[in-house]
Amino acid sequence: MTPAGAAQLALLLEVGSDPKPGNVDRGHDHGDTGFHHFLASAVNAYPALEGASEPVGEAFLEAVGAAHRHGGGNTHFGALLLLVPLVVASKRGGVSEVEDVVRGTGVEDAVCFYRAFDLVDVYVEPRERFDVRDRDAVEEVRREGLSLFDVMELSVDVDGVAGEWVNGFERCFRAADMLEDYYDGDSNEAIVRMYAGLLAGEPDSFVAKKHGEEVARDVRRRAERALERGSLAEFDRELIEEGINPGTTADICCAGIYVSLRRNGGFGV
Amino acid sequence: MTPAGAAQLALLLEVGSDPKPGNVDRGHDHGDTGFHHFLASAVNAYPALEGASEPVGEAFLEAVGAAHRHGGGNTHFGALLLLVPLVVASKRGGVSEVEDVVRGTGVEDAVCFYRAFDLVDVYVEPRERFDVRDRDAVEEVRREGLSLFDVMELSVDVDGVAGEWVNGFERCFRAADMLEDYYDGDSNEAIVRMYAGLLAGEPDSFVAKKHGEEVARDVRRRAERALERGSLAEFDRELIEEGINPGTTADICCAGIYVSLRRNGGFGV
Repeated sequence: MTPAGAAQLALLLEVGSDPKPGNVDRGHDHGDTGFHHFLASAVNAYPALEGASEPVGEAFLEAVGAAHRHGGGNTHFGALLLLVPLVVASKRGGVSEVEDVVRGTGVEDAVCFYRAFDLVDVYVEPRERFDVRDRDAVEEVRREGLSLFDVMELSVDVDGVAGEWVNGFERCFRAADMLEDYYDGDSNEAIVRMYAGLLAGEPDSFVAKKHGEEVARDVRRRAERALERGSLAEFDRELIEEGINPGTTADICCAGIYVSLRRNGGFGV
Repeated sequence: MTPAGAAQLALLLEVGSDPKPGNVDRGHDHGDTGFHHFLASAVNAYPALEGASEPVGEAFLEAVGAAHRHGGGNTHFGALLLLVPLVVASKRGGVSEVEDVVRGTGVEDAVCFYRAFDLVDVYVEPRERFDVRDRDAVEEVRREGLSLFDVMELSVDVDGVAGEWVNGFERCFRAADMLEDYYDGDSNEAIVRMYAGLLAGEPDSFVAKKHGEEVARDVRRRAERALERGSLAEFDRELIEEGINPGTTADICCAGIYVSLRRNGGFGV
């Protein structure tokens, strides 16, 4: 399977496994953005992933634009921000090159990243400087000579996807290890446990942005408990009722599946 | 969306809608062939669909071989037998050209079709002549100069997919009409109703092959009743318990989704 094929399959397996507490999955739609929009998004993203190469910012911008040509809202912005550099790294030689790929980004990559926010409605917190919603921020980024890696560094404390960029995709690789440890003939079960393990491991940054840090810490504790008790389906129903969707964890879950598919051809699929 | 993208999305939307009584869907796996194998199959088939052109038999053979590089059993043999000529027709000018495409097949297309049975374990009834499991049948087909269209004509009474080849894809086009009639903002609901409408319209030929014609007629009647009563979820549970999966109806459902996606860009996805 090519890097682009593996990335597309990772997007599909993530949304196609359940219960992944709080997120859209094969068992649950989410307001105006349903399971079918995630399927369409994965189909739409493929040609851009197939063509993806450095510069990474341009490849990301193209993938995000293509993916979101569907009738729903944000489906794969965060997931593609992890998958595009991973795909580019695979084409260069292997997923382990991803750190070099992201550290090699420049100012024009950062500009493309800011432009991507014009293409899809992503939930972000306002910032005083370099705000992605601020039309003047792109000029400021250019003036200060910030690379896309630098931009990610600015958000490392509040965004788990930015954290992966800065910390060598550490949780993505750990997610792949978990997946391989958990796999025992049932890919759905392995993905669900890996997702729950990530959620129990660290407060989800998307939940923190939307609902505050205390809620994110509470969700982490509840995930840990649900995992111990084997009550993920119940926890899923609770989070859906509370309107809490741990989007960062889903993004890292996608990237973890991709790494595993590339490293050893996956887990029975 | 390109023809190949629409075909891939059609495969994903079919398996990604539920309840589709008796078949693998987002709510239900089937023995050793699970939902994830259908996702992998759709990913694997894409490059072959993107490259598909006449001769159709060769394109079909390649797509079937690529799709089934996963850990499960038959996922998309029948669906690809409908989708490949539809994709080729789209590339020639439009889905309405599909009748010309299948009538234009030759002996080598038939040979590819027989070879495809070596690549995936498809449930078929034995035949006295031209049996797809018979190694000598290919030579017999060559000797008699049968085209792939001729081979389909031999099976028109016992196989609903062959019936589509011979009858101008009539039920596939009708399925697309149904989908567009039923669509009212919910793509899952429209696909499920279209599938149930097809199942209520004619006995499923795959059910007839596996369980006999009486069972297939009974399933048709029960589908009609379940559709009237709005009890498709219950009917789904019953068929799963009885081990009855109406595979031909699922194949035509895929093709119907494809036709609709190509004709008018689909229904909200």
